[in-house]
Order: sequence, then C-alpha cells, then structure tokens
Amino acid sequence: MSIEILSQASVIEAQDRISGHLNKTPLLESSLLNNWLGHEIIFKVEGFQKTGAFKARGALNTVLHLKESGQLAKEISAFSSGNHAQAVALAGSKLGIKTTIFLPSFTSKIKQQATRSYGAEVILTPTRQEAERLMEEKATKGANIIHPYDNDYVIAGQGTACLEALQDGVNPDAVFAPCGGGGLLSGTYLACQTQKKPPLVFAGEPKNANDAAISYRTGKIFQFDTSPQTIADGGRALSVSERTLQYISKVDGFYEITEEEILYWTQWTSHLLKIACETTSAVAVAAAYKWLCSQNSKKRALVVLSGGNIAPETYKEIWNHNYLDKLPVTTKVAEGCL
Amino acid sequence: MSIEILSQASVIEAQDRISGHLNKTPLLESSLLNNWLGHEIIFKVEGFQKTGAFKARGALNTVLHLKESGQLAKEISAFSSGNHAQAVALAGSKLGIKTTIFLPSFTSKIKQQATRSYGAEVILTPTRQEAERLMEEKATKGANIIHPYDNDYVIAGQGTACLEALQDGVNPDAVFAPCGGGGLLSGTYLACQTQKKPPLVFAGEPKNANDAAISYRTGKIFQFDTSPQTIADGGRALSVSERTLQYISKVDGFYEITEEEILYWTQWTSHLLKIACETTSAVAVAAAYKWLCSQNSKKRALVVLSGGNIAPETYKEIWNHNYLDKLPVTTKVAEGCL
Repeated sequence: MSIEILSQASVIEAQDRISGHLNKTPLLESSLLNNWLGHEIIFKVEGFQKTGAFKARGALNTVLHLKESGQLAKEISAFSSGNHAQAVALAGSKLGIKTTIFLPSFTSKIKQQATRSYGAEVILTPTRQEAERLMEEKATKGANIIHPYDNDYVIAGQGTACLEALQDGVNPDAVFAPCGGGGLLSGTYLACQTQKKPPLVFAGEPKNANDAAISYRTGKIFQFDTSPQTIADGGRALSVSERTLQYISKVDGFYEITEEEILYWTQWTSHLLKIACETTSAVAVAAAYKWLCSQNSKKRALVVLSGGNIAPETYKEIWNHNYLDKLPVTTKVAEGCL
Repeated sequence: MSIEILSQASVIEAQDRISGHLNKTPLLESSLLNNWLGHEIIFKVEGFQKTGAFKARGALNTVLHLKESGQLAKEISAFSSGNHAQAVALAGSKLGIKTTIFLPSFTSKIKQQATRSYGAEVILTPTRQEAERLMEEKATKGANIIHPYDNDYVIAGQGTACLEALQDGVNPDAVFAPCGGGGLLSGTYLACQTQKKPPLVFAGEPKNANDAAISYRTGKIFQFDTSPQTIADGGRALSVSERTLQYISKVDGFYEITEEEILYWTQWTSHLLKIACETTSAVAVAAAYKWLCSQNSKKRALVVLSGGNIAPETYKEIWNHNYLDKLPVTTKVAEGCL
C-alpha cells in the first residue's frame, strides 16, 4: 500500500483552518517536579481544549476541509467509545450539519450526554461490529465518515497541539505523546518537523496495549484481536494504520508503560498541576520521566497531555490506592552525580 | 471588643503588594452548565494560584506588610492542617526568612512534603493544643505568628482573588465564596465594595460545620468544641473571629450545604472544568446553584473556587459514588416557564 506522506506544512494549514474555532490551550509547569527531577517538563494541557481533549482539532480540521473542497455531504458520522465522538459532534455543530454518532452501549452515560449536548444524534449499539455495519450503511447513503486516526486531515489537525507549544517558544529537547491509533503521535511528529532543528519525538503506550510499539520495532502492523485491557482507554485501539505507521516509524523511541506507572503518573500529574489528567495522558508523562532519568545533562521535555475526560468509574480506580506518598525517584541529574 | 473595619482600599493595596509575586488566576466557564441552568456561572480558579489555593494571597500580603512597616521578625510561624501552611511557607521563602510550620501529625504526607518543599521547617505535633503551646513559645521569642484568618492583612489579601475577577470585567449579579474561618469571605465582601454598584455576596458553608451560618443569624460567635465532621476540610474551623464576623454579618446570605451536595458539586465541577476541585470549593458552587434556582430571570454568578489541593484519601471518598449520572435539576429560568 502506498499512501502519500504529508508535509509539515499540512499542520500549519490545519492551524489556519481551525484556530478561530477552538481554544489555544495553556502550557503548565510544576516547579516542585522540575526541582525533584533536575530537568524541566512543560505540559501542553489539552484538557482545556473544547470537548476536553485534543480530538476536537483533527475532527474539525477534517470537516472544515471537506467543506472547503466541496466534498462535505449532508451528514457526517463516526464511531467511537471515547473523545472522538464528542469531537465529531462538535465539528458537526460548528458547521450546522446533521451528525450521527454510534456509541457502544457500554459507553458511560456522561460521554453519551456530552455527545448529545453538541446536538449530535447518538445511536447505541450492542457491539462494535453492529456499529460498523450501521456506519457502512450511512457511508453508502453518502455520509462522510470521520475516522479517528486513519485520515490525513485528522493527523494534521492533531499536530496543531504540539505546533502551538513550539510557537509559544517552548524549544524542547524532546516531545512526548501517547499512542493509541497513532493520530496524535503522527501529527506531533509532523509538527516537530516545522522546526529548523526538530526536537526528538517519543511515544508512550500502555504495555498491555503495545501493538504500536511492536509495529514500530518490526515495521509491520501488529493487530490485537480484541480490545486490550488497560486503564488508559485512549490506548485501546487494536492497531495503528498504514497511514499512521509511516510517521510512527520515524519517531525516536517507544516507552511501554505498566498499569501501575499509569496510575502513579495520573495521580502525580493531577496533584502537581491541579488538573483533571486522563490516564492516557499519564502514559506520556511516564515516558518523559523514563527518558529524563536516562539523561546525563539537564533537558527540557514537552509533554502533550491528551485530555481531561475521566469517567467516574475510572476516577474510582485511579484513587483506589495512594501513590502520592512515594516521590518520583531522583534522576541522575537531580542527584548532581555528574 | 472593637476592631477597626477595613476600607475596600485595603484590598487594592494588597493587590499592589502581592501581584508581582503571585499568579493571576484564570476565569473558566462551562457552556454545558450554563445551557442547563439558563444562567451564567464564572469560576475564579484559585487552584492555579501558587501553592494551589487562594491562601498564598493573604499570607504573602501579611508578611510583605510586616517587612514594609519594619515589624518583620527573624522568624515567622503558623499552625495549620491545610493550605495556610504552604501559603506561609511560600511567603517565608519569598522573603528568605526562617519559617516554622506546626502541623498535626495526622496531616497527609503530601501536605507535609509540599510545605517542606518551600523551605519551611515542619514540626509535627500530636495535638492542636501542643501546637498552640509551641507556637506561643515562638511568639514569646519574637517570631511573627501568621493567623489563617484573624488578621487584617490576611483578609485584605484573600480579597484580591475576587478583585482580580471584577477587574477582568466579570460584572456579576452575585459572588459566592466558601466560609471556614471567614478570611476569604471577608476579603471577598470587601473586594465587592470597590464596585460602584456592588454585587450581592453569599457564603456557602458545610451544614455539618455551620458555625458561621449560626453566628451570621444570631450576630454572636458560635463555636464548636471539637472540629466538625465534613469532607470539606477548609470548612472545619471551630468558629469565625470577632474580626471576620464584622464582614460576614454584612453579606446577603448563607447557604448550608449537605455532605452529599458537596460531593455532587465536587464531581460536577471537576468534570465540567477539567480541574482538580477541592471539596471546600464545591461548597461555594452548591451555594451558587441554590441561589440561581431561586431566580426568576437570567443571572450571572461569580464563584471563587478556593483551591485544588486534594489528599488522596479525599479523592477516594469523592469518587466512591457516581453523581455524574444525575444532571443538575433544571432551574426555573432554563425551563423557560416565565
């Protein structure tokens, strides 16, 4: 399969397209954490993006592009159990177009409600297969189906989160993003290529859902048969796509993060920054921490925190144990042993 | 007892004194919540203040004033089981002065750690009485004791949170703050008096710790014998003081909030704004909701969210049940029944 690779300019074009409609999200730092680590971590907080996650960027870029290019149908549709549902619903409402979202019936009520609140029709399906069949039907009737990551405009849109941070002058040595289907990671990689001296790019992925890490190592798509078990729900995609693998294969490394590390960094990120930190975001924080621990001189890391949408049952699981009594282990640099 | 009442100018003076040292905290809104309510709530998010709470304002104003007026001793000291400890520690570190904080030994490790991280000496005491005895000793040796609320400069400093929001053009019909010892509420009242047409001012207080509400109704200080049981730890003060009662008695009303309402609004505020919302902050949100429900026309409320410091055991208690499945009951205005 040959898919054209995007230029870094596509991320800048995406930014021009969407920036008037979405929030510019803040950068946060914790002086406490920086002191402990002897390094600097700058967080791009996508929880403060509309819909509470970076996903609004890619969905809106796609739908606006469809409109610009005269390809926008009378209806848009998507399948998602996560943040992509709300993102497409928001994009549909911005353009005043009929939007149908298929959600598995186990999706938390709060996500169903949020998706409806943007004016989308929500159809609950008993299985993923049934949702796909119904979406297929929609497509044959002419609706635009917005894929959560296997789409050039989605990828370029997701890259605008990192681009904003770079434009704000962060100037990181390395950038960290979580990897599910690879849309955010691909866009982040592209955004970094807009820089004269591009920073390193690393991915964090749940160890229990390490299909992308395997695909990265082997150069071939590895696919799970069933949704892998991890608390980081944004990492549960069965596989990346040929499209996203093109970018993923170029990043500088993957860190596979255990469930305990995910919980640990979810608690610490929430605590230090006073934000709602999704478990999926914590995967990238853990990756940054691991990389910083391996460094022999002071470094600056940019971490893209994917979002702040946390289901109540996930909150309960996150805070079931207390990880805040255990400080992060001091890095080589903080020890001053150099 | 006769205590001079502060002019509203004292809050403006406090702002001049502290603003170069502290964060200007953001205002957040939830369009989802506003749509449901048919009203507008604007949140002043003090979790993004240094130390994660408004308390930094009052402590720093006091210590800077002591320095300006030549009254600063060689050491400052405070007793607190909560956010005031970190606030005084920060103020001490800003001025490079020896700071000793007495904490009850049951204070969570994370708060002990945060207080130490600002360079303060932390002394753990088995009882409150023992802490008071030791602090008394410090005072006799000449240290400045910074009281958490019974201090004019603390009151004026706390008022700068509301003042900032008013200067940002919020123009609310009513302002809501939680009440513990009454420092924030008093400062908020004063800040509102800087306006040509001052907004109404209301307090939220945990029903289980309603000493201030009783004092408000009777005009006399009601004092609990032992620390009242409420999840809103900022509301556990035994009583207000003669100083704070002067301002408290002038506000437009008190709302007494049940433990269930506190948990409900903690979850909803965290969920809608994607922030770490202290239980004490939720008390003010609940008060605003109750007031808005009683209104017959669209109103704008400003809610001072006191902070974002949540102990892990409190997080666990907050998310033990799921309140997000139950939307806030629609207000009269949202029903459009007028």
